[in-house]
Amino acid sequence: MNEIFSTVNRASEILRIAPRSVREKAIRRIAELITLKEVEILAANRTDIDNAHSLSPAMVDRLTLNSKRLADICASLESIASQPDPVGEILGGHTHPNGMRISKVRVPLGVVGIIYESRPNVTIDCAALCLRSGNACILRGGKEAINSNKTLAAIVSEALSYVGLPKGAVVLLDDPDRSKMLTLIQAVGSVDLIIPRGGENLIKFVTENARVPVVKHDKGLCHIYVDSSADFASSIEIINNAKVSRPSACNAVETVLVHADIADTFLPQLYENLKTSGVTIVTDADWSTEYLSLTVAVRVVENINAAIAHINKYGSGHSDAILTENYSNAQDFLNLVDSACVYVNASTRFTDGGEFGLGAEVGISTQKLHSRGPMGAYDLTTYKYMVYGSGQTR
Amino acid sequence: MNEIFSTVNRASEILRIAPRSVREKAIRRIAELITLKEVEILAANRTDIDNAHSLSPAMVDRLTLNSKRLADICASLESIASQPDPVGEILGGHTHPNGMRISKVRVPLGVVGIIYESRPNVTIDCAALCLRSGNACILRGGKEAINSNKTLAAIVSEALSYVGLPKGAVVLLDDPDRSKMLTLIQAVGSVDLIIPRGGENLIKFVTENARVPVVKHDKGLCHIYVDSSADFASSIEIINNAKVSRPSACNAVETVLVHADIADTFLPQLYENLKTSGVTIVTDADWSTEYLSLTVAVRVVENINAAIAHINKYGSGHSDAILTENYSNAQDFLNLVDSACVYVNASTRFTDGGEFGLGAEVGISTQKLHSRGPMGAYDLTTYKYMVYGSGQTR
Repeated sequence: MNEIFSTVNRASEILRIAPRSVREKAIRRIAELITLKEVEILAANRTDIDNAHSLSPAMVDRLTLNSKRLADICASLESIASQPDPVGEILGGHTHPNGMRISKVRVPLGVVGIIYESRPNVTIDCAALCLRSGNACILRGGKEAINSNKTLAAIVSEALSYVGLPKGAVVLLDDPDRSKMLTLIQAVGSVDLIIPRGGENLIKFVTENARVPVVKHDKGLCHIYVDSSADFASSIEIINNAKVSRPSACNAVETVLVHADIADTFLPQLYENLKTSGVTIVTDADWSTEYLSLTVAVRVVENINAAIAHINKYGSGHSDAILTENYSNAQDFLNLVDSACVYVNASTRFTDGGEFGLGAEVGISTQKLHSRGPMGAYDLTTYKYMVYGSGQTR
Repeated sequence: MNEIFSTVNRASEILRIAPRSVREKAIRRIAELITLKEVEILAANRTDIDNAHSLSPAMVDRLTLNSKRLADICASLESIASQPDPVGEILGGHTHPNGMRISKVRVPLGVVGIIYESRPNVTIDCAALCLRSGNACILRGGKEAINSNKTLAAIVSEALSYVGLPKGAVVLLDDPDRSKMLTLIQAVGSVDLIIPRGGENLIKFVTENARVPVVKHDKGLCHIYVDSSADFASSIEIINNAKVSRPSACNAVETVLVHADIADTFLPQLYENLKTSGVTIVTDADWSTEYLSLTVAVRVVENINAAIAHINKYGSGHSDAILTENYSNAQDFLNLVDSACVYVNASTRFTDGGEFGLGAEVGISTQKLHSRGPMGAYDLTTYKYMVYGSGQTR
């Protein structure tokens, strides 16, 4: 690992000062190569799927690439390449009474380590967002996606060489050995940030063992609260979408809370709709389960305060929605639910870097420090104060 | 500790939605009470100083309060009370093509734990910055300042009661037992952020044992590099100021690097000046020592690149300055030194929340995540995305 750390850190010094045009050209070249090599990528992905005997349908869905998903990845790449450059942005500043000019300037973090599972598109999204933000990165994907990831990482290397950037700017750790992951998350001085994306076990392992600062992408235990004033037809459509459109996603709804006053009338209609879509209803859950499947928990609550208390107690601080026609209840929900994304009258499924205008995401932070919610290129930066003096002393 | 955690968390729910006028009134009331009770505060501080037999002169200096320092604290309080309110600031947002309005809104973190040593003004600065940012806080000061801190914390409590805020909004842990500190830094779910300010042992203990996210305020190993084109008279004045004006401060210079071409002419003048101020010169140091006293290390370097490499290797990422008349060297230094604050032709002593316009500081972050450099009220916030929909599904 020491050799990898020094390679990546040398590359990071070059990335830090690489012109934006070069970084953008690299990102666009990745998209071109993905289009050119679609057959090769899908063949590697087919091998991974064929090997995925023990995975759940949700995990196989996450693992799967196809022409549509590759086109989506290329659209993300174009979106990332055409974003404003975060590097060098002047965030603010002022002139001290003594005449010194103090500027706060956005700069890359340096080296970012990203640990993830299953979804091979993460390899490309993260490489591109790190290039956009001037960071080098070490990617450690899941062993179930190893063939897909190796093929995609080779494409990234080719694109880096094409524009004259060092290949060490994006390194894939293709050794599934967990001890190497441990070395990665404890490499203080060699790695500036670790982003774990994945199941509870992975997050737990990383947060308990890391010495490098972590921004975690924890589970998504998302709620929808149906207030007594909610529009039934729209509510049913939103809940169905939030559960059924991609149950394996972390922004899918897991628990529906329903105001007691409408339970008798609303729930039969909701259940009929969900059962048609193959959804299993659980009404006596432990409220802490992330199903990631066509299963949803339903609980009747006395009022909006009980709903907010339930969400703040059992939720994961990811995405929660209220469905209501009552203005004050909408405002209370937005103010009092302590989550990264709070919605009124919309599906929780929108919590996503692409949907939020970030091009793609390096993860969805469920913590409050550094970044919260979908993380894009800006979230992979820090800042420094540059002070222009003329002999000032204090 | 469980009782403290629940008291503080209940207070945090109130603080989160407390009007800015109430929070500002509490901050101004603290200043009024400090002025009214100066005799009582200085008597308590005298007791601490009398007990401080084993402390170094630098530590006693940090511990000491006097009329001038109390007046400075009151000026900080007024500055904090008259700052723009960070809570509720709309950081940005856009309307999704489907019509949803997505706003990024600044919100308090919740509960902040601050662990510090010696300087009793930290008690007031941190309480005020937490009130400014809508956070409740748990303060754990050093046992050497316990009498000063208890008196100051009682004043904060009185101010909170005066404006109708819960006393649990600012809690002083007055038990020096280290096991309570351990409980504090591992209280995931009860505490949102830990800020340690202090010596290396404290920082090491906290970063190695914390489960709650940490923004560390590490040592300040600050450098001044004297380039070959530097103005001698101004350079000597800046170096003298950076070492002598308050050697116990973390922004004091510890190592001076001098370009080889001017060493023979510049160093004798510098040494003469520093010796007059009682400064000891060390030329064969291990380069990693934070003296915090009237001692400075001096090293001759071949050129600016060697200076930058030295700083990035031995520095603590705090504050580093170049003294030069060469424009390109100034820019290279600003771009390539990877520290929170980089200066041209000014003393490192300006790295300070008050000097940077933050009113005061809750610490000076030497890490890149969340906040870097002097931390004020804005650094004690996170954000959430509020999404206003009208039935949107994905």
